[in-house]
Amino acid sequence: MRLLMINPNMTEAMTRPMARVAQGIAGDTAEIIALTAAQGFPYISSRAEAQIAGAHVLDVIAHHHDSVDAVIIAAFGDPGLMAARELFDLPVVGMAEAAILTAAMLGDRFSIVTFSPHMARWYGDCVRQTGLEARFTGVRCPKTAPVSVDTVATDLRADLIGLVEEATARDGADVVILGGAPLTGVASDIASEVQGLLVDPIAAATAQAIGLVRLAPTYGRRVARPVAKPSTGLSPALARVIAGG
Amino acid sequence: MRLLMINPNMTEAMTRPMARVAQGIAGDTAEIIALTAAQGFPYISSRAEAQIAGAHVLDVIAHHHDSVDAVIIAAFGDPGLMAARELFDLPVVGMAEAAILTAAMLGDRFSIVTFSPHMARWYGDCVRQTGLEARFTGVRCPKTAPVSVDTVATDLRADLIGLVEEATARDGADVVILGGAPLTGVASDIASEVQGLLVDPIAAATAQAIGLVRLAPTYGRRVARPVAKPSTGLSPALARVIAGG
Amino acid sequence: MRLLMINPNMTEAMTRPMARVAQGIAGDTAEIIALTAAQGFPYISSRAEAQIAGAHVLDVIAHHHDSVDAVIIAAFGDPGLMAARELFDLPVVGMAEAAILTAAMLGDRFSIVTFSPHMARWYGDCVRQTGLEARFTGVRCPKTAPVSVDTVATDLRADLIGLVEEATARDGADVVILGGAPLTGVASDIASEVQGLLVDPIAAATAQAIGLVRLAPTYGRRVARPVAKPSTGLSPALARVIAGG
Amino acid sequence: MRLLMINPNMTEAMTRPMARVAQGIAGDTAEIIALTAAQGFPYISSRAEAQIAGAHVLDVIAHHHDSVDAVIIAAFGDPGLMAARELFDLPVVGMAEAAILTAAMLGDRFSIVTFSPHMARWYGDCVRQTGLEARFTGVRCPKTAPVSVDTVATDLRADLIGLVEEATARDGADVVILGGAPLTGVASDIASEVQGLLVDPIAAATAQAIGLVRLAPTYGRRVARPVAKPSTGLSPALARVIAGG
Amino acid sequence: MRLLMINPNMTEAMTRPMARVAQGIAGDTAEIIALTAAQGFPYISSRAEAQIAGAHVLDVIAHHHDSVDAVIIAAFGDPGLMAARELFDLPVVGMAEAAILTAAMLGDRFSIVTFSPHMARWYGDCVRQTGLEARFTGVRCPKTAPVSVDTVATDLRADLIGLVEEATARDGADVVILGGAPLTGVASDIASEVQGLLVDPIAAATAQAIGLVRLAPTYGRRVARPVAKPSTGLSPALARVIAGG
Amino acid sequence: MRLLMINPNMTEAMTRPMARVAQGIAGDTAEIIALTAAQGFPYISSRAEAQIAGAHVLDVIAHHHDSVDAVIIAAFGDPGLMAARELFDLPVVGMAEAAILTAAMLGDRFSIVTFSPHMARWYGDCVRQTGLEARFTGVRCPKTAPVSVDTVATDLRADLIGLVEEATARDGADVVILGGAPLTGVASDIASEVQGLLVDPIAAATAQAIGLVRLAPTYGRRVARPVAKPSTGLSPALARVIAGG
Repeated sequence: MRLLMINPNMTEAMTRPMARVAQGIAGDTAEIIALTAAQGFPYISSRAEAQIAGAHVLDVIAHHHDSVDAVIIAAFGDPGLMAARELFDLPVVGMAEAAILTAAMLGDRFSIVTFSPHMARWYGDCVRQTGLEARFTGVRCPKTAPVSVDTVATDLRADLIGLVEEATARDGADVVILGGAPLTGVASDIASEVQGLLVDPIAAATAQAIGLVRLAPTYGRRVARPVAKPSTGLSPALARVIAGG
Repeated sequence: MRLLMINPNMTEAMTRPMARVAQGIAGDTAEIIALTAAQGFPYISSRAEAQIAGAHVLDVIAHHHDSVDAVIIAAFGDPGLMAARELFDLPVVGMAEAAILTAAMLGDRFSIVTFSPHMARWYGDCVRQTGLEARFTGVRCPKTAPVSVDTVATDLRADLIGLVEEATARDGADVVILGGAPLTGVASDIASEVQGLLVDPIAAATAQAIGLVRLAPTYGRRVARPVAKPSTGLSPALARVIAGG
Repeated sequence: MRLLMINPNMTEAMTRPMARVAQGIAGDTAEIIALTAAQGFPYISSRAEAQIAGAHVLDVIAHHHDSVDAVIIAAFGDPGLMAARELFDLPVVGMAEAAILTAAMLGDRFSIVTFSPHMARWYGDCVRQTGLEARFTGVRCPKTAPVSVDTVATDLRADLIGLVEEATARDGADVVILGGAPLTGVASDIASEVQGLLVDPIAAATAQAIGLVRLAPTYGRRVARPVAKPSTGLSPALARVIAGG
Repeated sequence: MRLLMINPNMTEAMTRPMARVAQGIAGDTAEIIALTAAQGFPYISSRAEAQIAGAHVLDVIAHHHDSVDAVIIAAFGDPGLMAARELFDLPVVGMAEAAILTAAMLGDRFSIVTFSPHMARWYGDCVRQTGLEARFTGVRCPKTAPVSVDTVATDLRADLIGLVEEATARDGADVVILGGAPLTGVASDIASEVQGLLVDPIAAATAQAIGLVRLAPTYGRRVARPVAKPSTGLSPALARVIAGG
Repeated sequence: MRLLMINPNMTEAMTRPMARVAQGIAGDTAEIIALTAAQGFPYISSRAEAQIAGAHVLDVIAHHHDSVDAVIIAAFGDPGLMAARELFDLPVVGMAEAAILTAAMLGDRFSIVTFSPHMARWYGDCVRQTGLEARFTGVRCPKTAPVSVDTVATDLRADLIGLVEEATARDGADVVILGGAPLTGVASDIASEVQGLLVDPIAAATAQAIGLVRLAPTYGRRVARPVAKPSTGLSPALARVIAGG
Repeated sequence: MRLLMINPNMTEAMTRPMARVAQGIAGDTAEIIALTAAQGFPYISSRAEAQIAGAHVLDVIAHHHDSVDAVIIAAFGDPGLMAARELFDLPVVGMAEAAILTAAMLGDRFSIVTFSPHMARWYGDCVRQTGLEARFTGVRCPKTAPVSVDTVATDLRADLIGLVEEATARDGADVVILGGAPLTGVASDIASEVQGLLVDPIAAATAQAIGLVRLAPTYGRRVARPVAKPSTGLSPALARVIAGG
C-alpha cells in the first residue's frame, strides 16, 4: 500500500517529522511517499492562504493519484480536502478531520491545543466543517504567537502541557488533539505527563488512510463527481483530471 | 463609487447581462467595473473548480483593490469570498450570500431555484456557510442538466416558473432566489407570473455593496487580518498583499 | 424614495439623532419621515413592553403605508417587525435585524455592545430570531444600568470603548454592533479608537431599506398574507388593513 | 385553586367547550374561570393578529391576576405568553407550549394535526419557541381552509383521523397534538379509532397549570422582572403592573 | 390513583425523603408506592452504572405495572426511562426530564445545581436527551465531591445557596433545578433565601405523573411498541412483557 | 493484536459471518476473538432490549478486557458502547459509530439502508448519538419487516439494491451504510451493481479498532473514569471493575 503524504506548507523541515511519525504508524503495512509543496507559503495560517495552497494540493494529487492508494493532506486545516475528495477516485484524508473523528471514538468531548492564537479560528472552522461542534470544547493556545514555528514543539513544551491540563480540567475534554504540523510528535512526548487521551493528527490521519484503503471503497461507482469540462491556466495533469481523463 | 464586479466564470457572455443588471440597480450611485476571469473554467460547478477559481479571484482583487470601493464576486457559490474578505481592506460581497441575507429580510423562509441538478449541492452549502439553513426550504431544480448554460434563461423559462411555484406552494418559501449567473434577469422577467417574492442575486449583491460602502466601515481597524508572510508562485500583486504591502 | 422611520419608544429626544444619522446615510436618495410613538413607554426594555409597543407600531404603519416606500422600525429589538412584515405590502426593516445581517457581510462573527444589562437578554433573542446565533459571540454591557438613558452615549463613552475591545479581543468578534437607540452615532464617534468593524444599527437599517426598495420586490405577488377578517377595538386604519382593504 | 382561562379569540362558542374540558381535567382540584377576549378577532391566525391579541391578553391578566392562582392562555399559538410570564408573579401556561411539553413526556417524537393550512406556519413557530423542534415531525393539515371554524370538529372528523394516521404512519410521530381551539374535545372523541397517543391542548394546559400551582414556585424571588416604568395609553390595571405596583 | 416511585439507587435513606416530598405534592390525589432498588449501586453516578441500573428498573416495573397508574423513576439521570417508556403501557416519568420540562414552563433559561462534580456531565446529558439544551445555562456544582452523599443537603446548604446565586446572577438562569436525589427537599428549604425560581425534581416528577394520568392517554393505541420476542436470563415477569404478554 | 468482537445478539449464525468479514479486514494484523451473547435476545431491535443487552456487554468485556487490545461491539445500535468506553481502559468500538464516522471520511452525506422498518428509529438515534445528523440523509428500509432475519441478505438482495439507489439518487447520499448485523457482507456483494460508496459496518469497526490500537492511547491517563464503588447482583468480574480493581 502506498500513501501520498502532501505537506501543503513549503517547509521541508515540517515534512520530515510528519513522514517519520506516519511511517511509524504504518509500519510494514504501507509506504509513505512524502512531498512538500513547491508553491505557496512557509506556513499556512489563514483562509486566503488555504484557498491558494488548496489549489496547489489538487495539482500535486493530479500528478500522483495514479500511483498511490490514498492521499493524506498533511496540514491541520486540511486545505483542498473537500475539493480533492470530490475530484479524485481514491481516499483523501485530512489531518484535522481524521484527528477529530478519531477523537470522537476515544471519548465524548474533545479539545484542540495548538501553538499560536493565529490558528484558533481556522481550527475551530475545521471542527464545524466535520459537523461535530456539539462535542467540541474549544481551542486552547498560548496568548501570543511564537517567534518561530520551527521549534515550538520544544520551546513550548511546558506551555502545551499546561494547555492540555486546562482543556481537560476546566473545559471538560476527554481527548485533546495537538493541532498543527509543528506539533507533530508532541502527543507521544508528553502523554505520560498529562491527564486525558492525546491525538497526534498525522498519526490519526495515517491510521485512517490505511483503514480506508483496507475497506476498498468502489470509487468507480462514486456519485457527486464533477462534470468533465475544459480549463485554462491549469497544469496539464490537473486539466486532464478536470476534463474527465 | 466604483464597484468591481468579477465574474469568476470565464464566460464573457454571462458577464454582460450581470453588469447590465448591476448597473441598473446602481443607477447614478455607482459605476460597475465588470471583469471576466482569465483563468479557470467556462462555468464553475464543483468545489474543486471553486477552489481553483477562488484563488484566481484573489489575484484579480489584488490587482484592483486600490482603485475601487467594494468588490462583488459574481458567481453564485461565492468562490473565494471568505478568503477575500479576510485579506482585503474593503467590502467584498458574494452573490449567493447577498441574495440569502436579502431574502432573510423579505420573508421568513427562502428557497433557491436553479437551472441544473449539478448546482443543488453547492448552493445548499452556500446557505450553510451563512448560518441560515434553519430558514431554508431547499433547492429546486430541473431533473436533468441543460444542454447549454448560455440559453437557460429562455429555454427553461416555463420550467423555472414551475419550480418557483413548487418552492412557494409545496415547500412554503416566502422568497425565492433565482440562483446562478445564467439566470440573471429572470427574476424581473417572471415576477408577475409567479407567487412569492423573487431575488435576483446580482441585483441583491449590488444593492448590498452600495449599502456597505455607504456605512463606511473603518477597515483600517479591522481584526483577523492574516499575518504578513512571503510566498512562492503568486502574481506580484497578490504576493504584495500577502506580504502585508 | 420615502422611508417611514418609526421610533416605538415615546422619547422624542431619541428620534432626532436617529433621523439625523438615517438622513445622513440616505443623502439625496431618500427622504426620512421620522415619527415617535404616541403610546407605550419612554424606553422599551422587556418582552411585555415589546408586545404592547409592537401592536402600536402596526397601527402607525397602517396610517402611513400608502404614502411611503419602506418602513424602518427604529428600536433595537424590532417590536412588531414580524407582524408588520406579514401584514403590509412594502419592505419593513428592523434596526436589530438589519444590523445583524449587515454584520454578517462584514465579518465572520459579531457581537452586540449595549448600555445596560437589562437589554442583554432581549438583544440575544433578536439574534436567535434571525437564525444567526452560531456566528454570535454574545452581548457585552456594563454591569449596572445607567441612571438615565438620555445621556448614555456621552456618559458611557469610555465604558463602551472598553466593551468593544472585550468583544473583539476576548470574544473573537470581527464586527461589533452598538445596539440600542440611545447609542445612535456612537459607532462613528469611537470607530478610530477601537479594534474591529462597528455597525450603527440605524445606519444599517437605512442602507438596507434603500437597497430593498431598489430591488423592487413585487409585493402584489406575496404569499403568506393573513386571511382578511373583521376586528374589534382597533383604529379604523388598522382594522381596514386587517379586513384586507 | 382558581385558574383563569383566557380565550384570546373573541368567539364565545369556542370558550365554552374549552372550559368544559378544562373543568373535566381539574375536577374538584381547581375552579376554571373562563373569559373570552373583548377585543381583537374572531379567530387569531397570523402573527399580526397575535401581536395585537397578545397585548389584550396582558390587559386581561392585569385585571385578574390578584384573584387567581394561575393563568391559561387558551389559544394554540400562545399569544402574549412570553410577555405575560415576564410580567406577572404567577404561573402562566400556554395551550401550545403545554401540549408540546406534555407530548415530549409521552413519546419521542410528536406531530401537530390541525384544521387549516393557515395555521401550519404559526404552529411550527410555537414548536421552535419551546426549543423542541428536533423532536417535531411537522404539522399535518387539510389542503384547504374550512368554510367555518365553528364546526370543524364534526365536519372534518374523518379528515382529522386520516391526518393523525399520516402523522404516525408516515412521519413517525409517537404522539399527535390536535392543535387549535376549534379542535377541543376531538382527541378524546377519536382516540380509539387511531394509532398513536393524542394530546388535547386545553387538557394538557389545565393539567400543567394545576401541577405548577402545586409546586408553589416562590414568585416573589423571581429574577428577570421588567424594570418599573410609566406608560401611556394602557388600561389603569395594566399600567399599574408595568409601573411595578 | 397509584404511583410507583422506584429509587434505582440502593440507598433506602434516599427513598424515604423522596417519598415524603412526593406524597406531599400528591396529597389525597394519589398514593405513592415507594420501592428501593435491590440490585445495583448505593448511588449511580456514571453511564456504566446507569446501563446496569436501568435494566433493573425495567425488571421492577415489570413486576408492578399492572397494579399502578404511572411510574416515577426517582434518580436524577433517569436510568431506563426511554427503555421503560417504549416497553410499558402507562406513563413513565423521569425525575430529570420532568424537572427540565417543568423549568421550561417557569422561565426562559434554566440551570442545574448539584452536589458533586461527578454528576455534572451526566446531568448535562439529561438535558441533551430532552432536546432543550439551547435553553440550558449549564451545571453548577462544588469543586470537589462530598465525603458522603447522605448528608449533603445539610452539609452543603450554604454552598448550594451560593451555587444558585451564581446560576442566576452570572449564568442568567431564571429557574434552577436542584438535581440529584440527595438534594430532595432543599428547594423548599432555601427558596426564600435565593433569587430565582427553584425546582425540586421529585416534586416536579410527581406533579407531572399525576397530570399525565389525568390526561388518560390511550396506551392501547400506542405505536413504536417493540416486537414481541423470546429472551434468556431475564426474570419471568420481564420476560413475559418482552414476549408481549 | 487481539480484538474481542462481541455479538450482543444471541444468534450464533450472525456471529460467524461477522467474524469472517472482520478477520478478512484484519488479515495478519489482528486476531478476531468472536463471542456471542449468552443472555438477552435473538436479535435486539428496541431500546428496552438494548438497555438489557448493553448491561450484558459490560459483563462480557469485564471477563476479557485484560487479554485483548480492543473491543468491537458487533450490533448496529452499539448497545453498551458509551458505558463500556467510560468503564474500561482500552478502545471500545461500536459498529454503528465506526460506520458513521468512516462514512464521514468517504463523502459529504451518508444514508443508512437496513432490512426492516423496526430498525429505522434506533439507527437514526445512533446517528444523533455521534452528533453527525446534519450530514445524515436518513434511513431507507423495506416497508414491512422480513419473515426471518437469518436470510435477509439473500432474500432482500434486490430490495437492498433498490434502497441504495433511492438513498443516492433521491436523498443525495454519497455514502450508504448497510446497517444491521444480518446485512454483513452485502456491501461487497452488491457494490458493483449500485451507485455510491458502500460501508459494511463490521469491516469499518474492525479497521477503526486496529487504527485505534496503533495510535496507542495512554488509557492510564484517562479522565472521566467512574468513581470506584461497591455493587450488588453483578458478576464478580464486573463488580471488580466497578470497584476499581
